[in-house]
Amino acid sequence: MPIARALLSVSDKTGLLDFAKGLAALGVELLSTGGTSKHLKDGGLTVTDVSDHTGFPEMFDGRVKTLHPKVHGGLLQRRDNDEDKKNAQKHNIPCIDLVVVNLYPFEQTIAKKDVTLEEAIENIDIGGPSMLRSAAKNHRWVTVITDPADYAVVLEEMKEHAGDTTLATRERLACKVFQRTGAYDSAIAAYLNKEQTTQKTFNLSLPLYAELRYGDNPHQKTSLYGNFGDYFVKLHGKDLSYTNVLDIHAAAEIALEFRRPTVAILKHTNPCGVGCADEDLREAWQKAFETDKQAPFGGVIVVNRSMTIGLARIISEIFTDVIIAPDFDADARALLQKKKNLRLIQMLPGVAEALSEPIIRSAPGGVMVMDSDPRALGLDDLESKVKTIRPPTRDELEAMRFGWRVVKHVKSNAIVFATHDRTLAIGAGQMSRVDSCRIAVWKAKEAGLSLKGSVVASDAMFPFPDGLIAAAEAGATAAIQPGGSVKDEEVIKAANEHKLAMCFTGVRHFLH
Amino acid sequence: MPIARALLSVSDKTGLLDFAKGLAALGVELLSTGGTSKHLKDGGLTVTDVSDHTGFPEMFDGRVKTLHPKVHGGLLQRRDNDEDKKNAQKHNIPCIDLVVVNLYPFEQTIAKKDVTLEEAIENIDIGGPSMLRSAAKNHRWVTVITDPADYAVVLEEMKEHAGDTTLATRERLACKVFQRTGAYDSAIAAYLNKEQTTQKTFNLSLPLYAELRYGDNPHQKTSLYGNFGDYFVKLHGKDLSYTNVLDIHAAAEIALEFRRPTVAILKHTNPCGVGCADEDLREAWQKAFETDKQAPFGGVIVVNRSMTIGLARIISEIFTDVIIAPDFDADARALLQKKKNLRLIQMLPGVAEALSEPIIRSAPGGVMVMDSDPRALGLDDLESKVKTIRPPTRDELEAMRFGWRVVKHVKSNAIVFATHDRTLAIGAGQMSRVDSCRIAVWKAKEAGLSLKGSVVASDAMFPFPDGLIAAAEAGATAAIQPGGSVKDEEVIKAANEHKLAMCFTGVRHFLH
Repeated sequence: MPIARALLSVSDKTGLLDFAKGLAALGVELLSTGGTSKHLKDGGLTVTDVSDHTGFPEMFDGRVKTLHPKVHGGLLQRRDNDEDKKNAQKHNIPCIDLVVVNLYPFEQTIAKKDVTLEEAIENIDIGGPSMLRSAAKNHRWVTVITDPADYAVVLEEMKEHAGDTTLATRERLACKVFQRTGAYDSAIAAYLNKEQTTQKTFNLSLPLYAELRYGDNPHQKTSLYGNFGDYFVKLHGKDLSYTNVLDIHAAAEIALEFRRPTVAILKHTNPCGVGCADEDLREAWQKAFETDKQAPFGGVIVVNRSMTIGLARIISEIFTDVIIAPDFDADARALLQKKKNLRLIQMLPGVAEALSEPIIRSAPGGVMVMDSDPRALGLDDLESKVKTIRPPTRDELEAMRFGWRVVKHVKSNAIVFATHDRTLAIGAGQMSRVDSCRIAVWKAKEAGLSLKGSVVASDAMFPFPDGLIAAAEAGATAAIQPGGSVKDEEVIKAANEHKLAMCFTGVRHFLH
Repeated sequence: MPIARALLSVSDKTGLLDFAKGLAALGVELLSTGGTSKHLKDGGLTVTDVSDHTGFPEMFDGRVKTLHPKVHGGLLQRRDNDEDKKNAQKHNIPCIDLVVVNLYPFEQTIAKKDVTLEEAIENIDIGGPSMLRSAAKNHRWVTVITDPADYAVVLEEMKEHAGDTTLATRERLACKVFQRTGAYDSAIAAYLNKEQTTQKTFNLSLPLYAELRYGDNPHQKTSLYGNFGDYFVKLHGKDLSYTNVLDIHAAAEIALEFRRPTVAILKHTNPCGVGCADEDLREAWQKAFETDKQAPFGGVIVVNRSMTIGLARIISEIFTDVIIAPDFDADARALLQKKKNLRLIQMLPGVAEALSEPIIRSAPGGVMVMDSDPRALGLDDLESKVKTIRPPTRDELEAMRFGWRVVKHVKSNAIVFATHDRTLAIGAGQMSRVDSCRIAVWKAKEAGLSLKGSVVASDAMFPFPDGLIAAAEAGATAAIQPGGSVKDEEVIKAANEHKLAMCFTGVRHFLH
């Protein structure tokens, strides 16, 4: 059955006139309301106003214009049911076969600064969702469009199928409607919720972005939902896996900590080396790589400048899984793309915004939603946070800042030995802090790096003096940590005995 | 203004008659539809049918009975707007001040086995959500109930406030409506989506379970949504933190791996020791604790039997953050509850179900949804998976099984040295596998434990022989790992040279 009658009522008029002209050319009768009706008439089309169709005037500022049996009966009647047909005829309720509705922009309204509750509530669309839902429920016969992006395909199909759409398209469009109305009402609930702060619910509705290559392991199917593509673009290489995405997230956070040209190498979501340089990424790479020459095998590399051919040549000698950069120089990209299994990821400017979104993580029976913690805190006015007799030198202060910015991104318990522009050793993911410290010392030794004159950074307080003493004995001359242990006095005493300078940030940076 | 007119149309009739009688006693006029109307009349109440109110008959099997301007105009008119009042009078649209609607049970319908698409679609409620949304939008004047749990409070308020409800209650109820309609449409979208398998969306709508004490760190506010309480009950102690919940999740997974009486100690989401016994939890504790006597300070302990007074006495000597058990003997609980800062968590029988739910985790711009991986795989028919000249002894096979079940729950890269009933050393969370192996060897030495005759378990393949050789030199006589490295032949050769027995599970268990 060809589409005979369409009802159009939209706030977003993009492409509407051309679409309506296409419908008219196919002989479709057009019903419309208010501003949409005027828009179409101005465009030269013949349009019946819904109030003429229903015989019921618009009232209450248009709040109820389409909430009428002649509209909803037109949408909901079953075209293959004799009783329905008889009723429709008796009460003069003709079929409406196509609905084009988008909703009052509630989300945009509440995104505006200083929006009042009244304004927000006035922008809750009632008639629109009702029509969309009626049409979507009856999609066996009715076509429903809520996104201008679907105009072209619907018109195309009507031309090809004697004025009708295919069931597959109607199903897809119906599904899109319930996604939209579900997300719309969730947004309203979240807003009212925030306004009144009781009865909280967590609502999420995200489109599929990509099926990932696999999860933590090949037997774990994994899907990525949301707008990852607004922040990261894969320029080259195989599909991403779950661990790749975790690593990309972690890598971007590290890259955003530093302004100078910086390279970080990650493995299993932990940095294994970070280096800064004044100009050349190769110099930054050298410092990062020297920290641990073994772990980067199959790892993730992030840089905070456009990837140069100079660094690309060095990296291409090493087996790497993912390279992330704000851009790739053409020659660097050409060289790296020769590697089939290497993924190149461009990090777009808006990434900081994505990283400041709340963190969502499974818990038994649900999820936890946690404020994000993307950047190292507690470094303001560091000179005033000295706890030891000896104040830190300028170099030590710089090294504290660098070490703190790195240790924040290492899985807890985390210890980092650093100078002002590079890591010397990273102790990650241990169940006890003193073990993380000892591992870092031992790894520096393995790498042939001296810790003499270095700074030790600890993501949480030293609960006892032991970890700090181990660091001092390994050569550290200064320490940065949150403080807050019941044994702080003992720890400070040990620092003084070892002539260390030590600052307390007052902020902890556990990461799990 | 007192509530003068109510519209009731529900599928769940729980408590409705009493509520309606309460309304009638307060002088409220009752409008109703179909089955609800009959139910109320049978109960002795005077009810006006909505079709009599609108002057429009029910048709299309009741699909459009309430989609009428006399209903929606009655809900949406602004009580303080002169124009609205004039229109209402002219068209005879009296106010409806209270709406009681719950929705056709779409979620229950699709939960039924063998439900057809047609049946599911027939259960999409159109009139109900429209009324709920109209009433909720106009909550400044209209009271809307979608949950029988709210009958009592509304009636109570009406009695106290001269027949009206408070704005605070109307706001709360309006918010609840949009939560419900948002979740309802998301469920419909998810169902249609699954049916047509294109345009996938991830939808989640979970009630707040608890505000957590804090997140990874005190500056990160964290909320827990869902039905955590169906699986874990806090019997005693402070509010849980984000890390507590992560630890509880990890601890429950470990506990479910073992049938014999088992104790595991965790810290920073990693096990630092696991032990089994034939009978007594104290024996299992001893084995777990001996693995690492330092890390358990402030840690999480899980047991898979009711906590006994014998073990409680030992544990109460150590500073512990959380104890998890399927139950607590009364004397054990009494003793442990003396510690104000110790949390006691009862793990309920359904927990395995919660742990098999997909894993949700933040990604830039959205979330990843991954199949869960709650239990160690690949142990079936282990005898047939031997890759070395020497087959494992029966003891070694048992130790392989034990080690594999533990290493699966250690953050990657993970190495575990074990016997058939206990861990000897755990190397966790390193960026290179050989480092995890060396750390485990070194920790065993620190703990005064011999690795002679032990089995080494690796969560992923040994990419090179180095890690395996380090394990053999430390005393391991057998190894279990997934296999799958391009250098598998070299690794097997090294195993044979060191007279090791080695099995390949064929399954990897990375955990990040």
